[in-house]
Amino acid sequence: MGQPLVGIIMGSDSDWGTMRKCVDTLKSFGIPFEAHVMSAHRTPEQAARYASEAEGRGLRVLICAAGMAAHLAGVIAGHTILPVLGVPMKGGAMDGLDALLATVQMPGGIPVATLALGNAGATNAAVLAAQILALSDPTLRERLHAHKDAMARKVEEADARLQSEL
Amino acid sequence: MGQPLVGIIMGSDSDWGTMRKCVDTLKSFGIPFEAHVMSAHRTPEQAARYASEAEGRGLRVLICAAGMAAHLAGVIAGHTILPVLGVPMKGGAMDGLDALLATVQMPGGIPVATLALGNAGATNAAVLAAQILALSDPTLRERLHAHKDAMARKVEEADARLQSEL
Amino acid sequence: MGQPLVGIIMGSDSDWGTMRKCVDTLKSFGIPFEAHVMSAHRTPEQAARYASEAEGRGLRVLICAAGMAAHLAGVIAGHTILPVLGVPMKGGAMDGLDALLATVQMPGGIPVATLALGNAGATNAAVLAAQILALSDPTLRERLHAHKDAMARKVEEADARLQSEL
Amino acid sequence: MGQPLVGIIMGSDSDWGTMRKCVDTLKSFGIPFEAHVMSAHRTPEQAARYASEAEGRGLRVLICAAGMAAHLAGVIAGHTILPVLGVPMKGGAMDGLDALLATVQMPGGIPVATLALGNAGATNAAVLAAQILALSDPTLRERLHAHKDAMARKVEEADARLQSEL
Amino acid sequence: MGQPLVGIIMGSDSDWGTMRKCVDTLKSFGIPFEAHVMSAHRTPEQAARYASEAEGRGLRVLICAAGMAAHLAGVIAGHTILPVLGVPMKGGAMDGLDALLATVQMPGGIPVATLALGNAGATNAAVLAAQILALSDPTLRERLHAHKDAMARKVEEADARLQSEL
Amino acid sequence: MGQPLVGIIMGSDSDWGTMRKCVDTLKSFGIPFEAHVMSAHRTPEQAARYASEAEGRGLRVLICAAGMAAHLAGVIAGHTILPVLGVPMKGGAMDGLDALLATVQMPGGIPVATLALGNAGATNAAVLAAQILALSDPTLRERLHAHKDAMARKVEEADARLQSEL
Amino acid sequence: MGQPLVGIIMGSDSDWGTMRKCVDTLKSFGIPFEAHVMSAHRTPEQAARYASEAEGRGLRVLICAAGMAAHLAGVIAGHTILPVLGVPMKGGAMDGLDALLATVQMPGGIPVATLALGNAGATNAAVLAAQILALSDPTLRERLHAHKDAMARKVEEADARLQSEL
Amino acid sequence: MGQPLVGIIMGSDSDWGTMRKCVDTLKSFGIPFEAHVMSAHRTPEQAARYASEAEGRGLRVLICAAGMAAHLAGVIAGHTILPVLGVPMKGGAMDGLDALLATVQMPGGIPVATLALGNAGATNAAVLAAQILALSDPTLRERLHAHKDAMARKVEEADARLQSEL
Repeated sequence: MGQPLVGIIMGSDSDWGTMRKCVDTLKSFGIPFEAHVMSAHRTPEQAARYASEAEGRGLRVLICAAGMAAHLAGVIAGHTILPVLGVPMKGGAMDGLDALLATVQMPGGIPVATLALGNAGATNAAVLAAQILALSDPTLRERLHAHKDAMARKVEEADARLQSEL
Repeated sequence: MGQPLVGIIMGSDSDWGTMRKCVDTLKSFGIPFEAHVMSAHRTPEQAARYASEAEGRGLRVLICAAGMAAHLAGVIAGHTILPVLGVPMKGGAMDGLDALLATVQMPGGIPVATLALGNAGATNAAVLAAQILALSDPTLRERLHAHKDAMARKVEEADARLQSEL
Repeated sequence: MGQPLVGIIMGSDSDWGTMRKCVDTLKSFGIPFEAHVMSAHRTPEQAARYASEAEGRGLRVLICAAGMAAHLAGVIAGHTILPVLGVPMKGGAMDGLDALLATVQMPGGIPVATLALGNAGATNAAVLAAQILALSDPTLRERLHAHKDAMARKVEEADARLQSEL
Repeated sequence: MGQPLVGIIMGSDSDWGTMRKCVDTLKSFGIPFEAHVMSAHRTPEQAARYASEAEGRGLRVLICAAGMAAHLAGVIAGHTILPVLGVPMKGGAMDGLDALLATVQMPGGIPVATLALGNAGATNAAVLAAQILALSDPTLRERLHAHKDAMARKVEEADARLQSEL
Repeated sequence: MGQPLVGIIMGSDSDWGTMRKCVDTLKSFGIPFEAHVMSAHRTPEQAARYASEAEGRGLRVLICAAGMAAHLAGVIAGHTILPVLGVPMKGGAMDGLDALLATVQMPGGIPVATLALGNAGATNAAVLAAQILALSDPTLRERLHAHKDAMARKVEEADARLQSEL
Repeated sequence: MGQPLVGIIMGSDSDWGTMRKCVDTLKSFGIPFEAHVMSAHRTPEQAARYASEAEGRGLRVLICAAGMAAHLAGVIAGHTILPVLGVPMKGGAMDGLDALLATVQMPGGIPVATLALGNAGATNAAVLAAQILALSDPTLRERLHAHKDAMARKVEEADARLQSEL
Repeated sequence: MGQPLVGIIMGSDSDWGTMRKCVDTLKSFGIPFEAHVMSAHRTPEQAARYASEAEGRGLRVLICAAGMAAHLAGVIAGHTILPVLGVPMKGGAMDGLDALLATVQMPGGIPVATLALGNAGATNAAVLAAQILALSDPTLRERLHAHKDAMARKVEEADARLQSEL
Repeated sequence: MGQPLVGIIMGSDSDWGTMRKCVDTLKSFGIPFEAHVMSAHRTPEQAARYASEAEGRGLRVLICAAGMAAHLAGVIAGHTILPVLGVPMKGGAMDGLDALLATVQMPGGIPVATLALGNAGATNAAVLAAQILALSDPTLRERLHAHKDAMARKVEEADARLQSEL
């Protein structure tokens, strides 16, 4: 795939079922990536080292998925100036609201770009990464426009199907 | 300031008190920007046109601030492939949780990179914009590293002050 | 059915299972309607055009169903002076509370008449549309009175059944 | 003012500070109305009688404001086939969320068209009433279009003011 | 069973599965009761009449079960000076929190004695009714003491079973 | 005042500002009472002894006020078969929702009759106590009917005042 | 197992499915424990006696599991100066948030060390007990370091597995 | 004060107003401590180093205070086997519920002993630390018993004062 531009980190391998959607979307845009299981609490040194070295290794966007008291994205963001995207996982108290608040409510100076809970967020982290990388990649820009057109066509097709059901 | 790279849109001029922190942070990074009051509900055509033309006009990141049923960021994101950053405003039912959920819970395919509620989010939208632009701007990258160092020094100074208070 | 008086818009065809209750209720009142899948984020121009032209096309009430960061009803309401009824879909963070808040918490000047989450809301959007149209339609007024009587009789029958179970 | 077309009912005179915005907006549209303090719990017979007689007395839309366990709109809706608009008041547990849920979560068959919490909802109940009445009143339709234009102009003026502050 | 002392009212026959626990508990205490399906919204006159006549008919405690925007207990309480016990049903937004808030958050002067959501609340409404009636019924007082002892013995038996599992 | 029939227990003297409304309402009904500060956590033996002896001492209703993790009413209910009324205090996380849930969500067999948060609940605990005691006290029954009439008159007066303000 | 150092108390035997994880973790650390079903509401005297005698009996840490209006940990903490660890059970309104708030929101002076909802909390109560006991037990300290290393290795293995799936 | 046994870490010096209560309580028990401002996001290396070295430096309990997306306690817990106590600060979305959930909802294996929000939690972290240290310090055990007695006396004095106010 060439030099990875996006680094995906999951707090637990139980997040893989959801984050597979992120990986599939990155692949559909032809964006080289790497993915790792790494924990803010269980392997904090590895996570810190990974985040500290990411910029120097040529990574450009980091995507972090975690549930419950979701600290991973915030911890990663503390060690890098790369854009960090956070995907809160569902489950836990209030069906993922804990993960959402723990991801998005970062203090001033250390942003985490937070996406929706679960599947939609996993997909959208990949789309947002593509939008960021597309700023210096005209081919990716075209693919994003094509992707937008394809989404619109799908809605139109669903509308057409609905007409036949009414 | 040169050609604006960041476009800030507020749903109401009552958001200006909060978003001034976003503007100040962008200025501190030397990032040229423009700012507008524009409403997803009251001036929807202007908002749609602004979003549709933003890429062609050379803008690279859009920052949207809105409260209550905060639709602005999502609506803007529907009309562009630029990264859209959303800052939910406090106030309304549950002290801004309505704005947070209305900003972050976007469906698959149309991401809004959501930041924290209120002041912290306003500052962080600017920092995230800087992180995104820094991917192709080495000077900005240096400024972000310097900013990170300055934040660390401030914490250390606060720690030193605390020692004298104990 | 004659010229449609009610326009139903769903943000996704996954809303159809719920909104079928809305359609069935409109049919039971003999109200001509049309229904479309249209997205505030994926087909924003179509949605805007639909809303802008609705009054001129003779539609009198618009019903919008959407989930998660449910922007559809608000966006439609921004483009028309017709009454817009919003049905928040269940699912997402906090089991639809995100959709409820994103639908109901509209800023001053742009109302969305919000109904209950899910099935009850889908039915009630149709009843509310009937109540609005009945203001200039005596036949519909009679049907609404009959519908109210029928609901009361059903409760009385349920009460009678309960007596035999005690 | 002529025969009232809109009946406003408040559960307590403490709601008047908020509902004055509803009254002012109705006046700005030239819509004749009446307003009463009436309680679902303290004067239930009067409330029931008022709702039962409203249609016959020529009222066309009922607007109900209540806080806490906000039962007023639902109780009124149980006695009439007129459209009933509910404005949840702020205060109480979770800053009005109790009133919002108690107003909007009506069972199938008895809709309450629910607006936003507090001031925005009070204004919007009047605008929604105007939209409903405008369906058979071309003058009101024009006023609503003018109102929409005026809101857009206000946003544009706020945008112009912002430019001078940047 | 003799003259009913407790009147149970359910807003819908779908509440019967839960309220059967209330009935079973009343029976176990030997308290004569009656039970009805009656709706604050669909049969408001019957509900009002029932509540108004309850004291005169010799009923001493009323138990009301309702879900979603649970208005039934509050409406009943508006028409009587008998103690009204409210059992919020689960389901709806936030898994019954809407029903809980709509039942408990009554304004000053019109209390509803609110019990827990669902099954526990259904049982406890019966126990509370027994506690109230026992104030003038020594036999019932003894049964309540025996019931308390039986609950303690069950806990002790569960503890004994646990020891054998460790 | 004669032998106290109602025992009020507050978890902290900071609850007195709110519970004074309970005391005033009991006095207005002429119901003899006693009031104590007693803590489920700081003076658990006293609280347990008080609850255990209450029935024998001739008390007939216990009213418990507590905030945050409001355990007082539940603990008292564990030691008596008297009706226990719980008033959750405002403050704490989510403005008293913690106290509300900790008071109302009692397990099957040990009811706490829960009233609204704060002032309304303090007043209503007294009214509910009056309703319970009135079952064997015709004078109190008359006072409750008079109280209900007085509340209705106050609403009618508020309505009259409103007419002059319109 | 030798003299128990940890006492586990469950409010109901239905908590055993979850608390088995606590027991298994204590066993894996070789920590002697005892476990009981005991209720703050149904067997309050036993619970109070158990807590009062725990210090004298040589217990050093108490772990309390309860759901809904989870009073058990707080009641136990009122009768002892031993560290009390609280595990809120899932279920009830808002999927365990009631139990979490009722456990954690203790007033000043009477702490309950609260862990996560459900399984994670059950495991972590045991780990926290081990951390507390390890302060005076070097062998346990080594086991905790080994446990931390084992968790890190598991994450690394999950990462390795992921690489083969990509 | 001698070798510090408790290390207090605050994420920001704005937490000092609240955590002063923790310090005052530790002093009242005569427990030597140290306190630092250190951030999981702004000075992550220092925080990691502090946590890693704490055990070796003779610290026995760590107390962490943080607000919003409160990651500090969890991050510290990832680097040590000492008991970590978390105090969520008020403020942020939902008045501190974000900090509470981000502190308490730790994954299995890495506990954070979470106390109440704000002042009560700050005090209780100190009391819990005292309870933990008292397991190997008979003098501290006596002080805790005296502290418990003093709290009971304060409640009794408040009760006496109340009697004179009735």
